[in-house]
Amino acid sequence: MNAYLNTNWKPILTMHKYPFYGKIPHSELKRIVFKFLGVPSRKIILGPKIGEDAAILNIGSKDVIISTDPITGAIKNIGWLSVHINANDVASYGVKPRWYLCSILLPESINRKIIREIMSEIDMACKELGISVIGGHSEVTPNLNRPIVIGTMIGETKKKNYVTSSGAKPGDKIILTKSVGLEGSAILATDFYKVLKRRIDDKILKKAGKFMQKISIVKDALTAMKVGDISAMHDPTEGGLLSGLWEIAEASKVGLRIFEANIPIAKETRELCNELGIDYFGLMSSGALLICCKAKITNRILSKLRKEGIPASIIGDITKIKEGRYISKTGSIKDKIKPPIQDELYKAIGDLLHER
Amino acid sequence: MNAYLNTNWKPILTMHKYPFYGKIPHSELKRIVFKFLGVPSRKIILGPKIGEDAAILNIGSKDVIISTDPITGAIKNIGWLSVHINANDVASYGVKPRWYLCSILLPESINRKIIREIMSEIDMACKELGISVIGGHSEVTPNLNRPIVIGTMIGETKKKNYVTSSGAKPGDKIILTKSVGLEGSAILATDFYKVLKRRIDDKILKKAGKFMQKISIVKDALTAMKVGDISAMHDPTEGGLLSGLWEIAEASKVGLRIFEANIPIAKETRELCNELGIDYFGLMSSGALLICCKAKITNRILSKLRKEGIPASIIGDITKIKEGRYISKTGSIKDKIKPPIQDELYKAIGDLLHER
Repeated sequence: MNAYLNTNWKPILTMHKYPFYGKIPHSELKRIVFKFLGVPSRKIILGPKIGEDAAILNIGSKDVIISTDPITGAIKNIGWLSVHINANDVASYGVKPRWYLCSILLPESINRKIIREIMSEIDMACKELGISVIGGHSEVTPNLNRPIVIGTMIGETKKKNYVTSSGAKPGDKIILTKSVGLEGSAILATDFYKVLKRRIDDKILKKAGKFMQKISIVKDALTAMKVGDISAMHDPTEGGLLSGLWEIAEASKVGLRIFEANIPIAKETRELCNELGIDYFGLMSSGALLICCKAKITNRILSKLRKEGIPASIIGDITKIKEGRYISKTGSIKDKIKPPIQDELYKAIGDLLHER
Repeated sequence: MNAYLNTNWKPILTMHKYPFYGKIPHSELKRIVFKFLGVPSRKIILGPKIGEDAAILNIGSKDVIISTDPITGAIKNIGWLSVHINANDVASYGVKPRWYLCSILLPESINRKIIREIMSEIDMACKELGISVIGGHSEVTPNLNRPIVIGTMIGETKKKNYVTSSGAKPGDKIILTKSVGLEGSAILATDFYKVLKRRIDDKILKKAGKFMQKISIVKDALTAMKVGDISAMHDPTEGGLLSGLWEIAEASKVGLRIFEANIPIAKETRELCNELGIDYFGLMSSGALLICCKAKITNRILSKLRKEGIPASIIGDITKIKEGRYISKTGSIKDKIKPPIQDELYKAIGDLLHER
């Protein structure tokens, strides 16, 4: 489905003065970004916050969820990805994504066919999810080597009829839909297909390459929301499941007890990660959704999800913050769940680039 | 105020396969982009349309104006510019811009100081206009040679309490605030200061360089809106006054009769354009606002604007579409106002790059 532009990776791995790439780390956001937020407004229900991927505004009798996210690393399917990634951010609040705007930045080498391709992908993804394109901007931008699409997604809901990452309570169960590392597996299997083919079975690679098709969590989130009584939802993306868990715990000010044995991992993801020596729990995980809810409704949610064809598992519990954040491995080993660091994908890519 | 990254211009002028740069032309938008808009939605009051720079959604008891625009060409003040350019798009509907989101894409060479600079500029512009930052995304993006900021601006209003570019009626007067080509003059005087200094008086260049400070039309638009009975507003940007006029006429399906002698031009803009052999009426004009209104309230609007310290002039009339779109020059010469083509700025830059 998705092929990332390989040549993009190199510079960030070799010559970054800033000690990070990808998302600006939380510590920097707290230190710099969050200090410069213009004037306060009583209409803001949810503003910039670690672990939250959208804003919530009160508009008259409604609450409005708004998210913005760019697709910068991909060369193929960027229109399709932009709609889905932004739709995920709104849907993880339990709200249906409805209206989409985008800025499309095109390199000088652009031709009509590429614009048409991006727009028809946007159209396709919008039709898959029932979304309308309401506006945007498109331009030829100097000194780009591939198109970049920056999406904005909007959804509306009745007042307070949403969940955030911040509502998890001690005693809640934690459900995970689909499996970990789907997005990262798809990127590795597609972009490094030639290198990996020497080491990994072709069928595994081709199957992992198709994982990008599972990237939407809109159905997962809206299905869970219909059951009701969800306390928190969050879609783990960069930094994988562990980062997603840490973010939900940080936003909710709670602890975590996760059981490794319960976490679903696709055979293909396991094989890819073992071969590359990376941790699937820290690998880009768009497509999986974390749902926190009271223990008593867990089974109703699981059965509703399964009825919709969405696999889901209980992977652990929310605890009090003083109990810490742990993942229990086999035996009595417990690993601490730490604040997000670099996604495992980048580690793998560093090695793979040398092999090419 | 604003300095554009000179090195950016070169490639687009030398090697574009696509016959345009800057905004994708209207003909292409109609042919490609507007055909791929996902599913219809009854909540959309204003969707993608030539000559309109924002979308309008009905959310419960309110109407919501949303605009998205990137700042791709500038290297300095991009945070400040992003807020103002997006605020202009919302304000030209007569609605106060209130909430801002942004995606900040940073080159690998980034350091903490630059992020802080961009964010503090965003903060400053938001405080100037009474806007809140409600969310966003920041990342280090591979293969960029300068930061890019993509803003999204939102405003709310009572149902139907807005004006669009589409409401101009034959018989309306056309008011222009400030003067034409402010933005283009500022870019030329700043980015090509060294070359132009050989040909143009230093005082002129320094004064023109400061025109970027006049870029906001928020006060212009909200002041006019308070008087009431505005039929259409539009802020001319790329392609200058002539493009802005054509866009308003096209959106409203009307004709135009403009009197050249009535159009305000700053002495500095006139001097720059004459020296460079370009047309100030086709030069980037953010900072000026076009207001169409019934003849009888024209004077009330003019006096309100002037009371707020905003110069404004009546530059012509809206006519029936069959009467055509003309600008009357001295004597009995009439020039047709045509659909937007390349901004005059790019023509000037082409020549100036050779001189450097």
